[in-house]
Amino acid sequence: MSYQSYFSKHDCKRILPPTWVHGPYPPELQRRLSLLDPKEWITMGSGTPNKDFFSVKNITVNHSIDLHYHKDSKDSHINSFFIGEEVNQNDVQKSDSKIEEVFEYSPDPAGLDSTFEIIKKLIKKFEIFKDFKSDKMTEDDYDYCLTSGTSASSYYLCQILLDESKTILSEELTFTGIMANVSMTRANIVPFNLNMEANDENNENPIDVNYLAHLLENWSSIYPDKAFPTLLYTIPVQNPTGLVQKIEHKREVYNLLKKYKILIMEDDPYAYLTLTNELRDDCDLTSKTEFEVQKQVYYNAMRKAGSYLSIDTDGLVIRCESFSKNFATGLRLGFIIGPKPIVSRVKNYIECSTREISGLSMTVFNQCCKGMDELLCRNLKTNDIEQFDGWIQWCINLCILYRHKQMFLYNELTKKSTRSGKKLFSCLKPTYGMFIFIKLNLEEYKSKALEDPQALSEAMQYMDYKLLENNLEAVVGSRLTVSVEHSFKKCGFVRVTTSQAKDDKQLIECSERVTDAIEKFFDEYLTDKQPYPVVL
Amino acid sequence: MSYQSYFSKHDCKRILPPTWVHGPYPPELQRRLSLLDPKEWITMGSGTPNKDFFSVKNITVNHSIDLHYHKDSKDSHINSFFIGEEVNQNDVQKSDSKIEEVFEYSPDPAGLDSTFEIIKKLIKKFEIFKDFKSDKMTEDDYDYCLTSGTSASSYYLCQILLDESKTILSEELTFTGIMANVSMTRANIVPFNLNMEANDENNENPIDVNYLAHLLENWSSIYPDKAFPTLLYTIPVQNPTGLVQKIEHKREVYNLLKKYKILIMEDDPYAYLTLTNELRDDCDLTSKTEFEVQKQVYYNAMRKAGSYLSIDTDGLVIRCESFSKNFATGLRLGFIIGPKPIVSRVKNYIECSTREISGLSMTVFNQCCKGMDELLCRNLKTNDIEQFDGWIQWCINLCILYRHKQMFLYNELTKKSTRSGKKLFSCLKPTYGMFIFIKLNLEEYKSKALEDPQALSEAMQYMDYKLLENNLEAVVGSRLTVSVEHSFKKCGFVRVTTSQAKDDKQLIECSERVTDAIEKFFDEYLTDKQPYPVVL
Repeated sequence: MSYQSYFSKHDCKRILPPTWVHGPYPPELQRRLSLLDPKEWITMGSGTPNKDFFSVKNITVNHSIDLHYHKDSKDSHINSFFIGEEVNQNDVQKSDSKIEEVFEYSPDPAGLDSTFEIIKKLIKKFEIFKDFKSDKMTEDDYDYCLTSGTSASSYYLCQILLDESKTILSEELTFTGIMANVSMTRANIVPFNLNMEANDENNENPIDVNYLAHLLENWSSIYPDKAFPTLLYTIPVQNPTGLVQKIEHKREVYNLLKKYKILIMEDDPYAYLTLTNELRDDCDLTSKTEFEVQKQVYYNAMRKAGSYLSIDTDGLVIRCESFSKNFATGLRLGFIIGPKPIVSRVKNYIECSTREISGLSMTVFNQCCKGMDELLCRNLKTNDIEQFDGWIQWCINLCILYRHKQMFLYNELTKKSTRSGKKLFSCLKPTYGMFIFIKLNLEEYKSKALEDPQALSEAMQYMDYKLLENNLEAVVGSRLTVSVEHSFKKCGFVRVTTSQAKDDKQLIECSERVTDAIEKFFDEYLTDKQPYPVVL
Repeated sequence: MSYQSYFSKHDCKRILPPTWVHGPYPPELQRRLSLLDPKEWITMGSGTPNKDFFSVKNITVNHSIDLHYHKDSKDSHINSFFIGEEVNQNDVQKSDSKIEEVFEYSPDPAGLDSTFEIIKKLIKKFEIFKDFKSDKMTEDDYDYCLTSGTSASSYYLCQILLDESKTILSEELTFTGIMANVSMTRANIVPFNLNMEANDENNENPIDVNYLAHLLENWSSIYPDKAFPTLLYTIPVQNPTGLVQKIEHKREVYNLLKKYKILIMEDDPYAYLTLTNELRDDCDLTSKTEFEVQKQVYYNAMRKAGSYLSIDTDGLVIRCESFSKNFATGLRLGFIIGPKPIVSRVKNYIECSTREISGLSMTVFNQCCKGMDELLCRNLKTNDIEQFDGWIQWCINLCILYRHKQMFLYNELTKKSTRSGKKLFSCLKPTYGMFIFIKLNLEEYKSKALEDPQALSEAMQYMDYKLLENNLEAVVGSRLTVSVEHSFKKCGFVRVTTSQAKDDKQLIECSERVTDAIEKFFDEYLTDKQPYPVVL
């Protein structure tokens, strides 16, 4: 039976760009892939932290099939199981969460008050509103709303703020989830340019502000058929490039957007993962003094990047955070901070649709967050810490772990990039987050790929084939852009992440496979050695 | 700053009917309400089971702020806390869920495979497809998708199946969440009549099939401006009336809809809560023989109601289930079963928007479901049970507990209904679920309220005032209808639920307050005794 006539006429326009999808494959590649050992498969594609990055090591559940009508129930009527590692529990403390918070509806579909409280304190602690100054509003004019992560947040915000008569701006290379979100509103999405030369040394703005200024100034001649934008989407610790907007860069962008009263959706899941060298990995974890020093180092690194919220004089900024990268993706927990009138509409949307997030997720998060203070106190042998300093220690530890992985892979790749005798690729040195951006040297060694968007897409598809043949998943640049047409000259790259890598040994193996795939790409593509055609 | 120009032009049309909202209040009522003791407040409004209905008694979490770069971590680096009751854990078993299932993204955004497996087995066990026979499709032509509950399910389905050019049919009295879902698609919603005379004895169809047949046959003259419906929404264990469609009633409705190829969205969260007297509350819970008898009794009760799926010869049925009522609302866990082409579009929608549900919720559900078998085996002192018989025992226990509460309140209310010397109200005898429908005798004692929709709405608002003055929350009929205009003669009722009531004592108190409120309503409303006006 065909269901075509039953579907909403809008349904066919809801499209997730296939960032995580591979293929189509030519038959010969299909044959080769079928010979690979699935156990040897390594993914460097999805930014899901592996279990080394989980704070929770063990969850034990005690449950019963008895109900209170059967009053003689004893603990023998309790079944106990655990998920995770076996641990020797000592001194299990009763938490201040009620079990109703876990298993009943939250009184407020936008989230549990107890979780809001923690989030507000974390926001204060991290000085997200640092030096906030406005003659139009105060911090109290912003509100909070929990969601199941930044994907959900940006989905809701697009639903609230876009329709078929509106336009949203996005970095030309980006997390393509936003394109799915926009496709569901039938709004226009228009890319703006990144400045790929920006780095920590030259301190240039990773957003090409001149381009953006020119675009806005000449909008009606450049995009005569599209409405002037009302919203800009940005990932300040950029995905996929890893470029980082520091607070002075944000100010530059903000001042431009303010002129046009364009709202800013700041999608900042990697904000807390600084890779700064100033965080020491040989700290005495039992020393309060050393902790305080590290904490200030961490704060300083955070402040360098800052948030658009801290400079939001005009109430234009909506910030999306997530606990996916610094706590656990599987909890599905994130939040939005934005001007009250906007957040109130998000809450309305949630009430009308999916109705809130898991009470179990919120409560476990709450208590872990509090428990981290307990752990820090135990390490430091003092109760003299500030609330949620434990969370800071946790974030610092995460940063050090990520820095190790990121720099290790960066160094390995950089070392191998000239192995063939040619400089086939170069990596952007990561300073935040979990991605490494590997730029292929197409200009010099495969310039045909840069001739037009189609040529680039085909080349990158072949690049993906080579990665897959090496039993490795990564994401090629043509799948991480708003428009290959607009950005094809910048799409000659591979994005890898270290978040799933188990250890240094595996990172070496990763760098080996990536390098080999790139070498084969340059060696074979568009030559007689190419064993199969590209299918798009 | 006004954000009006930023909002999607569709946003203002997203409206959740204020079922759970009270007011507006006249000043005198406001004063009276401010004097009430909030600690004495009782809610009979929301169908959230209270903690007596939770299987999980204790969740213990063991977590750390150390990461593996700090390899000397021992269990002393673990903090342990619990939520819920203190229990003596004995023999904690390692579950077969990996911690990655809890804390990483599910590989499939539609849910964990492990959860799907359980759900499919439960569906088989409960014979949801019993006697399924079709020459057009097989059970394999249906697919499954997890969601965060039936609210989310019906939201997604409306997004997939409705648009501004379509029409959905709904029972005239209903869960108003569906109206919010429909409002977001800008489709038309049209009520069809319930047969309020239907009951367990006369076995009449609670859906007024003659009305529905007439409506469909004469659609273009009755609703000349609305598209012919493509979808019908039904709650077979009806909310708010508690009326139950048995399988023969479903067949009657299905055969009618089949003629017109109208899809059916079966929203069935209360399906597993039968209140049948045949389930014994004095069972020997250690006897395998008695368990087997009870299990057959339970199955028989289930079969009497059945599912539209079992009679779906033409692939028109989409079933929504939820674990909110028989496990825990706070987990946010439910699922959809429907024809593959439809479910595949739901999955696409989820991928493009909210992206999956909590791994923690799914995994804890999985393991509790399995652990119930362990508990049953322990009770029965045998391992000779079928898989998920433990879940059956759990459901049976829930049913017995609900039956007790429901019948207790029903009897109390029925006893008190003539206390004033007049039969002021009557209750529909509940046979499933957690609601009691209290019909006010407006015809005899307050017929002015039935004169027109406005009169009814005002009367019901006053009824709500009286309930609130008694420090009691319930839902009045005018807030549980698709259209007061269409249904005002049936809206003279109060819906109460026993799911939050702690014990018999509180149920007596509830019945007292409800009766008192109703008596005051009849005594005061539209007379000189009425102390304040109605504000709408």
